[in-house]
Amino acid sequence: MGSTPNISPLAPDGFPALPAVAGVRLATAECGVKYADRTDVLLAAFAAGTTVAGVLTQSKTASAPVDWCRRHLPGGQAQALLVNSGNANAFTGVKGIEAVEQTVAGVADALTCRPSRVFTASTGVIGEPLPAEKISAAMAGLAGDLQDTKDPAKWTAAAEAIMTTDTFPKGAGARARIGDAEVSIVGIAKGSGMIAPDMATMLSFLFTDATLPADVLQPLLAAAAGRTFNAITVDSDTSTSDTVLLFATGAGADHGAVTAGDDPALDGFKAALEEVMRDLAHQIVRDGEGASKFITVSVSGAEDDRAAKRIALSIANSPLVKTAIAGEDANWGRIVMAVGKAGEAADRDKLAIRVGGVEIAAAGAAVDGYDEAPVAEHMKGQEIDIDVDVGIKSGDGAGSATVWTCDLTHGYISINADYRS
Amino acid sequence: MGSTPNISPLAPDGFPALPAVAGVRLATAECGVKYADRTDVLLAAFAAGTTVAGVLTQSKTASAPVDWCRRHLPGGQAQALLVNSGNANAFTGVKGIEAVEQTVAGVADALTCRPSRVFTASTGVIGEPLPAEKISAAMAGLAGDLQDTKDPAKWTAAAEAIMTTDTFPKGAGARARIGDAEVSIVGIAKGSGMIAPDMATMLSFLFTDATLPADVLQPLLAAAAGRTFNAITVDSDTSTSDTVLLFATGAGADHGAVTAGDDPALDGFKAALEEVMRDLAHQIVRDGEGASKFITVSVSGAEDDRAAKRIALSIANSPLVKTAIAGEDANWGRIVMAVGKAGEAADRDKLAIRVGGVEIAAAGAAVDGYDEAPVAEHMKGQEIDIDVDVGIKSGDGAGSATVWTCDLTHGYISINADYRS
Repeated sequence: MGSTPNISPLAPDGFPALPAVAGVRLATAECGVKYADRTDVLLAAFAAGTTVAGVLTQSKTASAPVDWCRRHLPGGQAQALLVNSGNANAFTGVKGIEAVEQTVAGVADALTCRPSRVFTASTGVIGEPLPAEKISAAMAGLAGDLQDTKDPAKWTAAAEAIMTTDTFPKGAGARARIGDAEVSIVGIAKGSGMIAPDMATMLSFLFTDATLPADVLQPLLAAAAGRTFNAITVDSDTSTSDTVLLFATGAGADHGAVTAGDDPALDGFKAALEEVMRDLAHQIVRDGEGASKFITVSVSGAEDDRAAKRIALSIANSPLVKTAIAGEDANWGRIVMAVGKAGEAADRDKLAIRVGGVEIAAAGAAVDGYDEAPVAEHMKGQEIDIDVDVGIKSGDGAGSATVWTCDLTHGYISINADYRS
Repeated sequence: MGSTPNISPLAPDGFPALPAVAGVRLATAECGVKYADRTDVLLAAFAAGTTVAGVLTQSKTASAPVDWCRRHLPGGQAQALLVNSGNANAFTGVKGIEAVEQTVAGVADALTCRPSRVFTASTGVIGEPLPAEKISAAMAGLAGDLQDTKDPAKWTAAAEAIMTTDTFPKGAGARARIGDAEVSIVGIAKGSGMIAPDMATMLSFLFTDATLPADVLQPLLAAAAGRTFNAITVDSDTSTSDTVLLFATGAGADHGAVTAGDDPALDGFKAALEEVMRDLAHQIVRDGEGASKFITVSVSGAEDDRAAKRIALSIANSPLVKTAIAGEDANWGRIVMAVGKAGEAADRDKLAIRVGGVEIAAAGAAVDGYDEAPVAEHMKGQEIDIDVDVGIKSGDGAGSATVWTCDLTHGYISINADYRS
């Protein structure tokens, strides 16, 4: 990692005070996987009956831990989660598979559970064998250290143990009602580069003490991921290790049985879960490598929501748009270019662009008497808003989407020309 | 443009001495479209009977000049070419269309030809009205200055007049035999940012004194463009103005009639044309904004050639791969990542990677006893070679492709955070 990076200028004021999640116990350790003098392994143990849902990278070169999770998610039952930072255990061949089996077996032995109920994720360098023995050696100590989450500091420690190039730990939480009962939702995440959408994204682990079957959890997680983790991009690069897992311990307040995802009793829970996920997704963008601006790109007037999202991502991933924003230049010509290259229907002669709420272009040309001053002022801020109407449809039938990204700065180059990830 | 950029460290030693192309006359002028104290307009006039073929941007927000060329290419006849730098006349609404009509009419009047036989291209700032009157005012002078291309300096002047952020003028030429006759092929090009493939790309104009009907020229140009201009990428951003035009004057040595693209008499011409186009495409990459390394990415073992090209471009466009190369780091883990995100079939456990000809990974893992020293030495050079076999097919049926790109450096950020293009 070289020297400790400075904390992102877009970082939140501090780590939030997160609620306890009944049925979750946590422990962290310094195993020396790669980094010295910092925690790099997280073990989470769950109450009996915990269910699990997941969204995994679509990469064709997925890591060994991703393969493991994909194989065991259909079982829907989880007893533990093991995460290490510093080494992704990706593209490590047979050794990588063996390393997963060895570390998972260690957890299963320590907690007396089936290996198939142990989920695992690794993040860090690609292509170097994971020193599984270092993790295995720490397992007895980790199991002995497991503590419930009544002390919010446990969440902070968990979020810190999974960091790589992150400049701050990422967490978010909420309380939500299901029927008459109040449940907790807490999430932690890591990621600041190799972030791209439509492929699951980075690592995030979500925990709730609600009682929800895995087949209810899964579609609910997937839908929310589409509007949160899969709607962010830092650099268009997709990790081999992207993993989002949601664990429901069922150890919280009794809210009666929920057996269908469309049960209205879940409405509040769904909203709270998505809000937690959006918060974490935004934190990842705010820690984008070298980021100095948090950018919201909203596209409307498209053929459908999918087309709108593809256009929004074309804008959000354009190096020329991102460098212009880094330079505080409201260079809307580059936005036009990015709309054009997306490959989705756009009516050049109806296109409208707003930056910071100010209309810059309409009906396919710069607006008469466009005053650049308020836009220039907006560009100096840390939060940049770009709204584009592509003029294909209007009204209720029009497709729309919002995605989030950060600017492309010298900081990104410095971090990535030096760090081997 | 701010201060004059330094010449790219990857630039060729100098502008080549290009052969004359019979039937082509050239003139350039300083019209002050945007830049002061430099030529910014090129006029080319062609012998009667000149045919034309073209490949244009696929952008949905194409510029007014691109629309004009698309409309008139089916006619297949050309009398003149007008190009300006400094202003792209893109996203300029009705004013943009009027500016094209006005400047084209000026050429048609000066050369006494039909407007539909005047082709035009503009490059530079997007979204600002083109000051057509400045170009029109210079037209009589330009027409009066037209000279044939026996003096190679005319080619240099033409290539210089179409530059924007380019740090050197780009030209290439060849002599080729068709039957017993020798013909000339000369091309000029511009472009260093907003370069991406599969959409035609940047501006390039090719001239030959061969006698070839437009319906023979067009497929020949399109096929060669797929392996040259459409196989390069600087930053994955696609211009609204990308234009490649090939003019055949028929004013050279008599080689007898050629009426079909598959006539064996054309083999030498095809090879020479593709070589000229590849040379120009490479020059564009060598002038990639901020480029310090010229990168060749070859992919083999894919499902088909299309899949191979998509994987090669995923590698060539990855910011993480490009920054690693800028840092002279043979970070093959990022290459694995980029293969994985391409979305095309790849067998992770058969994947093989060579950098600088040295095998780094095979059968899905780092090779035993991999010696990094020769690879580290290769990374210090200016020419970087990456070869990936994705392990899906082997032998004659395997898909393969080669693309070219440059690294992503602080220079790219500096250029694009300041320059409004």
